[in-house]
Amino acid sequence: MTNIYSERISRVRELMLSNGWDAVVVSGSDPHGSEYPSARWLQVKWLTGFTAEAGDVVITHDHAGLWTDSRYFIQAQEQLAGTGVELHKTRIPGAVGIPEWLSDYAKVVAVDGLCQSVDFVSEVRAASPDGQEIHIVDVPDMFDGLWEDRPSVPVTPVTTLDVFCFGGRPRGEKLEWIRKWMLLQEVDGILLSSLDEIAWLLNVRGSDIEYNPLAISYLLVTQDRAIWFVKKDDAPLDPDTDDSFSELESDGVEIEYYQGVCDALCQWAEADDSARLFVDPSSLNYHIYDRLSSTFSVERLIKGISPVVLKKAVKDVTEIENLRQTYIDDGIAMECFLYWLETEVSSGREVTEWEASEKLTSLRAAIPGYRGDSFENISAYGPNAALPHYSTPAVGSAVIEPKGLYLVDSGGQYLTGTTDITRTVPMGECSYIEKMDYTLVLRGMIDLSMAVFPRGTTGHQLDALARMPLWRNGRNFGHGTGHGVGYYLCVHEGPQSIRWQANPQPLLPGMVTSNEPALYREGSHGVRHENIVLCRDAGTTEFGEWLDFETLTCCHIDTSIILPEFLGPEAAAWLDEYNAYVFRTLSPYLPAEVAEWLETKTQKRLVN
Amino acid sequence: MTNIYSERISRVRELMLSNGWDAVVVSGSDPHGSEYPSARWLQVKWLTGFTAEAGDVVITHDHAGLWTDSRYFIQAQEQLAGTGVELHKTRIPGAVGIPEWLSDYAKVVAVDGLCQSVDFVSEVRAASPDGQEIHIVDVPDMFDGLWEDRPSVPVTPVTTLDVFCFGGRPRGEKLEWIRKWMLLQEVDGILLSSLDEIAWLLNVRGSDIEYNPLAISYLLVTQDRAIWFVKKDDAPLDPDTDDSFSELESDGVEIEYYQGVCDALCQWAEADDSARLFVDPSSLNYHIYDRLSSTFSVERLIKGISPVVLKKAVKDVTEIENLRQTYIDDGIAMECFLYWLETEVSSGREVTEWEASEKLTSLRAAIPGYRGDSFENISAYGPNAALPHYSTPAVGSAVIEPKGLYLVDSGGQYLTGTTDITRTVPMGECSYIEKMDYTLVLRGMIDLSMAVFPRGTTGHQLDALARMPLWRNGRNFGHGTGHGVGYYLCVHEGPQSIRWQANPQPLLPGMVTSNEPALYREGSHGVRHENIVLCRDAGTTEFGEWLDFETLTCCHIDTSIILPEFLGPEAAAWLDEYNAYVFRTLSPYLPAEVAEWLETKTQKRLVN
Repeated sequence: MTNIYSERISRVRELMLSNGWDAVVVSGSDPHGSEYPSARWLQVKWLTGFTAEAGDVVITHDHAGLWTDSRYFIQAQEQLAGTGVELHKTRIPGAVGIPEWLSDYAKVVAVDGLCQSVDFVSEVRAASPDGQEIHIVDVPDMFDGLWEDRPSVPVTPVTTLDVFCFGGRPRGEKLEWIRKWMLLQEVDGILLSSLDEIAWLLNVRGSDIEYNPLAISYLLVTQDRAIWFVKKDDAPLDPDTDDSFSELESDGVEIEYYQGVCDALCQWAEADDSARLFVDPSSLNYHIYDRLSSTFSVERLIKGISPVVLKKAVKDVTEIENLRQTYIDDGIAMECFLYWLETEVSSGREVTEWEASEKLTSLRAAIPGYRGDSFENISAYGPNAALPHYSTPAVGSAVIEPKGLYLVDSGGQYLTGTTDITRTVPMGECSYIEKMDYTLVLRGMIDLSMAVFPRGTTGHQLDALARMPLWRNGRNFGHGTGHGVGYYLCVHEGPQSIRWQANPQPLLPGMVTSNEPALYREGSHGVRHENIVLCRDAGTTEFGEWLDFETLTCCHIDTSIILPEFLGPEAAAWLDEYNAYVFRTLSPYLPAEVAEWLETKTQKRLVN
Repeated sequence: MTNIYSERISRVRELMLSNGWDAVVVSGSDPHGSEYPSARWLQVKWLTGFTAEAGDVVITHDHAGLWTDSRYFIQAQEQLAGTGVELHKTRIPGAVGIPEWLSDYAKVVAVDGLCQSVDFVSEVRAASPDGQEIHIVDVPDMFDGLWEDRPSVPVTPVTTLDVFCFGGRPRGEKLEWIRKWMLLQEVDGILLSSLDEIAWLLNVRGSDIEYNPLAISYLLVTQDRAIWFVKKDDAPLDPDTDDSFSELESDGVEIEYYQGVCDALCQWAEADDSARLFVDPSSLNYHIYDRLSSTFSVERLIKGISPVVLKKAVKDVTEIENLRQTYIDDGIAMECFLYWLETEVSSGREVTEWEASEKLTSLRAAIPGYRGDSFENISAYGPNAALPHYSTPAVGSAVIEPKGLYLVDSGGQYLTGTTDITRTVPMGECSYIEKMDYTLVLRGMIDLSMAVFPRGTTGHQLDALARMPLWRNGRNFGHGTGHGVGYYLCVHEGPQSIRWQANPQPLLPGMVTSNEPALYREGSHGVRHENIVLCRDAGTTEFGEWLDFETLTCCHIDTSIILPEFLGPEAAAWLDEYNAYVFRTLSPYLPAEVAEWLETKTQKRLVN
C-alpha cells in the first residue's frame, strides 16, 4: 500500500541513491531553532503527514523513523499509519536518540543544514564510534526539487513596542547592556539567530510565525553597529514596517537583507582579522556555522549560551505589573467561557470541541491589546484529552457531553504579556478514577504552588513536589511540569524549567513559569491543571534568602469532584483561598450572571 | 600571641621559604582518600588543632586558612582561636574553593601528593587563569622533618569474611565480575586505592582506621593476577593475618608490600608496553598517578569511576536479610539506652553526655557480631547539639538536664552490617521553638520516607521533600539529607546521596541510604531525626516501574512534643504505624521494664 507520504519518501530515497547518502535527517524546526516553524519549514509534515511541532525524521534506504516524545505518541501512531514511518519514542527510559541511532546505520548523512542546530550536528559526530567518522553533507533546502509549491519565507508587518506602556527596557539600554557583556566576554560581535531573542533585544514584533509574534531574521551586534538581517525582497514595505524600520534606524540599527547574513559576517571577519564572534550553537543553524567556520578561525568563533536567554526570562517591574493585569483580563475571558460552556451543554444543546474553541478565542479577541492566541487551543473532550497536545479538528470534532471531563489548554498574546492556562472541567457525572486522577493532579499543582525554596534552587529539584501525589499512587505523566513563558513572545521559553530531567538553571525572581502536572489515560480521559507562577523574593531569615511563587493565573478551579482524602488539608486550604481570591478579583468585572455563577462555583469551602 | 599551632605554621613557612613555595596545601585525608584517616595522616590536626574529619588547610606566607563545611563552622571557630588560621566556609553560596583561591595567591604550590587526589590537582590546575600555569610540587610526607613522633602506617590484624554467613558474594565471583568489566572497558588492569572498595572486593577487613574496618593497601587486578599491596614490614604476621593471607593466596591473590605498589605497576607497564591500566582519579593519590604517568603513556592510563563503587552500594539478598536483623538488634540497644537515659535523668542523678555515650557503646558491644562503633558517638545536650558533628569530651562534658533536647547520633559495625541512627530526645519541658523545629524536621524525614518514585530518579530530586516543611517556615540545614551506608564497611559511602547539590546517580533497589534532615540553632539547640532506608522495588503500573523506601531503622520516635498542626495527618499516620511496628518488633526481646516503658512511649496515637 502506498500513500502520498510513502511516495514522497521513495523520491527522497532516489535523491539519496543518486547522491550516495546513507541517511537523510529532516528536522521539525526552521533556520532559527523555532518550536513552531512557519509553513515553509513544515518539512516533517510534508514528508510524513505528522503535524505536531516536535518531531524529527530519519530516512535510510530500508527504514523511515519519526522521533518524538510522549506528548505525541498517540497522535504519531494515528498519523503515521500507512506511511511506513515507524515511531521512535524519546524521553523514555532506554530511548535511543537520533545521533546514537545514526551511528549504527549510516556513514554519509545528509541534512538541511539550515534547519539543524550546530549542537545537533556535534551530537551526531560525537555519537559516532572511535575512528569511524561520520560524514555530514549540508544540503540547504534539500527538498526544493521535490516539494512543489513549497511556501516561501514569510513577510509580515514589523511593529515596534512602546516600552513605556508595555514593559521592558528601551532598545538603546538593551544594546548597551549586551555591548558591556561583550566587553566582559572579550568578543567583538554577537550573532543572534533565535527569533525571540532578536524580538526582545530590538523591541520589535512580527507575525511571521503563527502564535509567535516574531520576524524571521538574524541580528549582528558589534561595539559600533547593530545590523538586522530582516528584509526579504525588494517590494515596497508596508507602512507599519516602514515606520518601524525608520525608528530602528534612528536608534542606530541598520536594516539589511535576510539572505545577506553570511556574506556580511564573512566580510566583517575579513575586514578585521582579529575580530571574535560569539554564537550560540544550541540555536545557530549548522549551515551558517559551517560557512563562518571557513572564514573565522576556531579561536575567533566563540561558542556559548546567548546572554539574552536568561536576561529575557527575568521580567522587569513594568512587565510584572502588566502581567498581573493581563492574567486578570485573561481570567475574565476564561470565566465567561466556562460559564457559557456549562450553560450551553447543560441546556442540552450540542456543543462541539471546535465550537468551544472558537468561542474562547472570540472572548479573548475582545480584550484590549489582544494580538492573537499564544498557541492553538487544545479543546478536548473525554478520550481526546488523553492526547496532551490534541489538535481539535474544525470539522467533525467531538460533542461535549454533560458528563466526564473536558480539558481546555489555551492562551493569548497581548501587548502586555503572553498567557497560558489549562482547566479540566467536570461536565457532569464522573467516574471514581476520573475524580481520583483530577484530585491527585490538583494536589501536585498546589503542592508546587506552595513551595518556598532557597536561592539557587532549580526547577529540577522542585519537580518531584508536583509529581509525588501521583507517584505515590503509581501514576505519572510524560512531559515537563513547567516551562518558561515569554512576555508577548513565545509561550515556551528557557532557560528555566520544572522537569524530571536535569536542568542546572536556578529559578530567579522575575521568572514566569508554568505549573502543569497532568495525567493521561489513553481511550478514556485526560487531566491537566495549569497555572502560571511568578518566582519572587520571599525574604531573608538567619537560614538564608528565600524565594516562592506568586500565582498569576486568575481563574477558578472546579471543586465538585474533588476527593478530599487525596487532596489533604493543606492543599484544600490553599484552594479555598485561591478560589475566594479569584471571585473577589474578577466578580466586579464580570457580567452579573457570570459573577453569580462564579460565586456558586467558589463558595463551597473544602476546609471549615 | 603564639601557641603550639602558630609555631608549627611558622616552621612550615620556613620550609616554604627555603624551597621557594608560595603555598602549601594540607589535606585532611590519607593516601586512599579516606574520610577518617588514621593517626599518621592527621596532618590538619597536627598543624592547626582542628580535629574534625573534613577540613583542608592552605598556608601562604601571609595567610593560613582552613576550608570546611557548615557541619563544622562552630567547631572550627572554637578550635582555631589563637592559631592565626582563618575559617573559609565551603558549600555556602558564593564560597571560594581552594583551587580558585590559590589561583589568586600562588604560583608554586607544594602538596603532599600522597594525600591529594588526582582530581584535586586537576582542579587546581583548571582554576589557574589562561596562560599563567600553576606549578605543583609533590612532596610526599612533607612534614616528616617537622613532626616529631609522627605515627607510622598502622598494622592491624586482617580477617576474611565468611560470605555464606555474613552476606555478599565470594571473592572469586567478584574477581570474575571485575575481569569481565575490564574486558568490556578494554583495559588490562585496574588499580584500586579506595580502602572500602578493596575490602569489599577481597572480602577482607582490618582495623587500621578507627570506626572503619579497613586495611591500608592497594590492589591491582589484571586478567590473570590479583596483587594486594598490604604488608607493612618484615615482622612475623599475627595468626589471624597469616590465616587470612593463606586463604587469599589459595584464591590466587598475591600478597605484596604496601610500599612496592609504584614499582610493581611500573614493572608491569614496562613488561607489556601495550597494557592499559584503569585508575579512578577521585580516589587515586597524585603521587602515585604522577609516577605512573611517567611510565604509562597517556593513552594507556584510563581514568574513570571505579565500577566497585556502584556494585558495592547495591546490596545483595543475603546482605539485605542480615541488615534487617542487624537494625533490629541495634534498635534493642537503642531502646535500652533511651530507657536508661530517661530513668536516670528523671531520677535526678547527674548524667553527662560522655557517660551516656559510654553507656550506649556498652549496650551495642553486647550484641553478637559487634566489631566496634561505626563512628564516634555524638552525644550532645542543648546548645552542643547545634554542632552537627559535636565531639563529646571525655572530661567536662555537659550534664543532661530534665528539660530541653538531647541529640544522639551513633552506629555500630557488625559482621552483618553497619548501622547509623540519630534520635533527638525531649528530656522534659521544651520551648515552643524546640517543639516546632522538632516537628518540622520530623515531617521532612517522614515525607521523604513515604516517597514513591520512578526508576531513574536521583536523591537530588527527592531532597526537597525532606526540606520543604523547613523551607516553608524559613528554616534549613547546611548538610546533605542522606548518604549511602556500607555493609560492615564505611558508614558514609557513595555513589548515591540525597542532597541539595546535584548528583546524577539514580537510586537503585538494594541501595542503603540515610534520611536525616536537621535544624541547628547556635547557642540554643539542635534537632536531627535519622532513619536508614533501603531502596526497593515497588512494582510496575501502566505508568512505569516504581521504587520506594523500606525503613531499616527500628527505634521509636518520641511523640510528646510534636505540634500536630505542623506534622499534618499523613506524616502523623506514618508515625503511628512506625511506632507500633517498633513496639511490636522489639518488645519480645526487651527486658520487661524496657518493654513496658516502650509501650507507654508508643501507645499514644496521633491520628484516631
